[in-house]
Amino acid sequence: MDIVETFSPPSPAEMAGRLARVQMQMEAEGLAAYVTVMPSNILWLTNFANFIHERPFILVVPASGAPRFVIPRLEVDHVLSRHVGALDLCAYREFPAPEGGRWQDRLADTLPAAGRVGVESMLPHAIAAEIGDHAVASDLVETLRQVKSSYELGRIAYGCRLKCEAHDRLLAEARAGFSQSEVNATIGREVFSKMVADNPSVNPYATSIMTLVQNADVSHDPHNFTDLDIRMKEGGPHVTVFNSVINGYGAEVERTFFINHVPEVAKAPFETMLQARRMVFEGLKPGVVLQDLDRAVIDFFEGQGYGDNVIHRAGHGMGVTAHEGPYIADGDDTVAQAGMVFSLEPGIYFPGLGGFRFSDTAVVTETGVKALTHGPETLEDLTL
Amino acid sequence: MDIVETFSPPSPAEMAGRLARVQMQMEAEGLAAYVTVMPSNILWLTNFANFIHERPFILVVPASGAPRFVIPRLEVDHVLSRHVGALDLCAYREFPAPEGGRWQDRLADTLPAAGRVGVESMLPHAIAAEIGDHAVASDLVETLRQVKSSYELGRIAYGCRLKCEAHDRLLAEARAGFSQSEVNATIGREVFSKMVADNPSVNPYATSIMTLVQNADVSHDPHNFTDLDIRMKEGGPHVTVFNSVINGYGAEVERTFFINHVPEVAKAPFETMLQARRMVFEGLKPGVVLQDLDRAVIDFFEGQGYGDNVIHRAGHGMGVTAHEGPYIADGDDTVAQAGMVFSLEPGIYFPGLGGFRFSDTAVVTETGVKALTHGPETLEDLTL
Repeated sequence: MDIVETFSPPSPAEMAGRLARVQMQMEAEGLAAYVTVMPSNILWLTNFANFIHERPFILVVPASGAPRFVIPRLEVDHVLSRHVGALDLCAYREFPAPEGGRWQDRLADTLPAAGRVGVESMLPHAIAAEIGDHAVASDLVETLRQVKSSYELGRIAYGCRLKCEAHDRLLAEARAGFSQSEVNATIGREVFSKMVADNPSVNPYATSIMTLVQNADVSHDPHNFTDLDIRMKEGGPHVTVFNSVINGYGAEVERTFFINHVPEVAKAPFETMLQARRMVFEGLKPGVVLQDLDRAVIDFFEGQGYGDNVIHRAGHGMGVTAHEGPYIADGDDTVAQAGMVFSLEPGIYFPGLGGFRFSDTAVVTETGVKALTHGPETLEDLTL
Repeated sequence: MDIVETFSPPSPAEMAGRLARVQMQMEAEGLAAYVTVMPSNILWLTNFANFIHERPFILVVPASGAPRFVIPRLEVDHVLSRHVGALDLCAYREFPAPEGGRWQDRLADTLPAAGRVGVESMLPHAIAAEIGDHAVASDLVETLRQVKSSYELGRIAYGCRLKCEAHDRLLAEARAGFSQSEVNATIGREVFSKMVADNPSVNPYATSIMTLVQNADVSHDPHNFTDLDIRMKEGGPHVTVFNSVINGYGAEVERTFFINHVPEVAKAPFETMLQARRMVFEGLKPGVVLQDLDRAVIDFFEGQGYGDNVIHRAGHGMGVTAHEGPYIADGDDTVAQAGMVFSLEPGIYFPGLGGFRFSDTAVVTETGVKALTHGPETLEDLTL
């Protein structure tokens, strides 16, 4: 699988291809229209990145022809400056607005007179209520996003390179006392600057750069990034949290590292985590049912006595977000296909000791997986 | 109205007071439970800031007693480290998960056996579907958030001061060629550093700092911040976009300014906008119906020949977000009350010329409004 890095915006042909796949799937599901408000689906279908606030942005995909985009009048020029591909704008006056100028009025204009309307799981029920009895649940756009185009793989590879350069720098500069604020100001800022230097028209609405490090006090609690004055310390385990969206495409690379010495109690969990990681790298290939892979990891950890220390699945999809389906998770019966991109990140967590997790971004190939990120792999190389 | 600045977390008594108001309103509406997933409502009721991703966070408020919080197991320690006030955690295994370990299973555990369940407009319809026929639409938590407590006014005042200091610095340093990247790296970073210095336990999940400037090329398009290399230029109108959430409370101060000279065609729109701004400052007081105020502004602009240049309402509420109800908008029949906080920002926009808008954050007092932000007010003072 050859992947050519790119940071160019998608071509009209790329966007037309996505729309064609959506409309073909709509036909298969017998839908006269499909309604989505998820920023990720809207970005994927229009190249326009909105943020969620009280003014709704609603994309209505008809059975054929250009999508219709219900937006506040305030955003018309903004949408025109960014979107790629066919798009009809249906602007409402404001939120709220008097009858006739409301989003509800424009949504009604864009819906088909008859036929079933597909709605995604995340659609707010106030919007679903406007569609009424015609609405049928379907997450077809999210599902179609799972297998990436060559262009998308190139965008993801670009973001992965930027994140790996930053991650390498972080490991090179890691030292006791290095604070999160300083990491953000130096390493985080450099990622941002490189991205803008490559592409000044980068979209900040579709960008979120994390260059976080959890020290052993909090690394057992993998979403606790709430102390901005947190500092690296002697020992470990420290865990990096380098999940990002780089101008509209996700990337993730993470490692567990130590400073100067490795506590004796940390050695066995570290090596066990590495074994689980190898299981995932070796097990993921086309045809594998994702939940079977996660179940194997859980069973392995349980067999090592770490059953209570598994608090998350072995991986998640990535694309226009850095966190999306399908999931390498017990309960997800999706079958892996070439072109799907995942984080591979089995981990174990111990209150009072810390967390043990590597994460790499990898694409499923015809025969296995190809990592798009890299980093040190051994305890020796991660004792800094 | 005396307001004492603070950046301390809310007390358990403050949180208990909010919960009591919610449960009293639930009783008035005949609700056995209320279900919310909006991060703003969750933050207001728990002091925990979540980010929206595929793993749902669902707060279920019962008719009496502590709220129940359906969260992924992964987040238990994180929630425990941050929440203030009574809270029962109901952790599900993962998303997705096999039956028995899913969010749907824990949600079912937390719902009452009988009685009506209030659900907010933004609730995803997949969650509403789990509640079924017991669900009735109500945005009671958002409505109760509209009138701020003394503590909340102190938090908002603190954020407003930080933003005003940054805004003053921006105007002092404004010059042709000053790029957005540089503004972010200096002025934006300083806001962040001050906030962290005051309070190292600041919550980055509840923080979003914008120190943006639109030059005359884009200031007609008020949400287009997509060129990070954008630079200030001779002339104008430049418009600042200083809408932020500072550790969980909104603040906004914005001005239209010029560098070295004012284009002749910009003078009349600038003065007209100032007149509209005075109308809003003088017109807003307890008892005023918000839509009447916006309608008066629209009529005024129309009378001046600028009817086509009004693309947004005269203001929006602020609280735990920087953008929320009620709205000073035609179509919003809310009656202003003391303790409500708004942006006051009537504006007009001209493609090819630029935008004209000031914004200040102000609280409604017993007799009128009190501004929590400040800045230069005249064309002379804003020609830099």
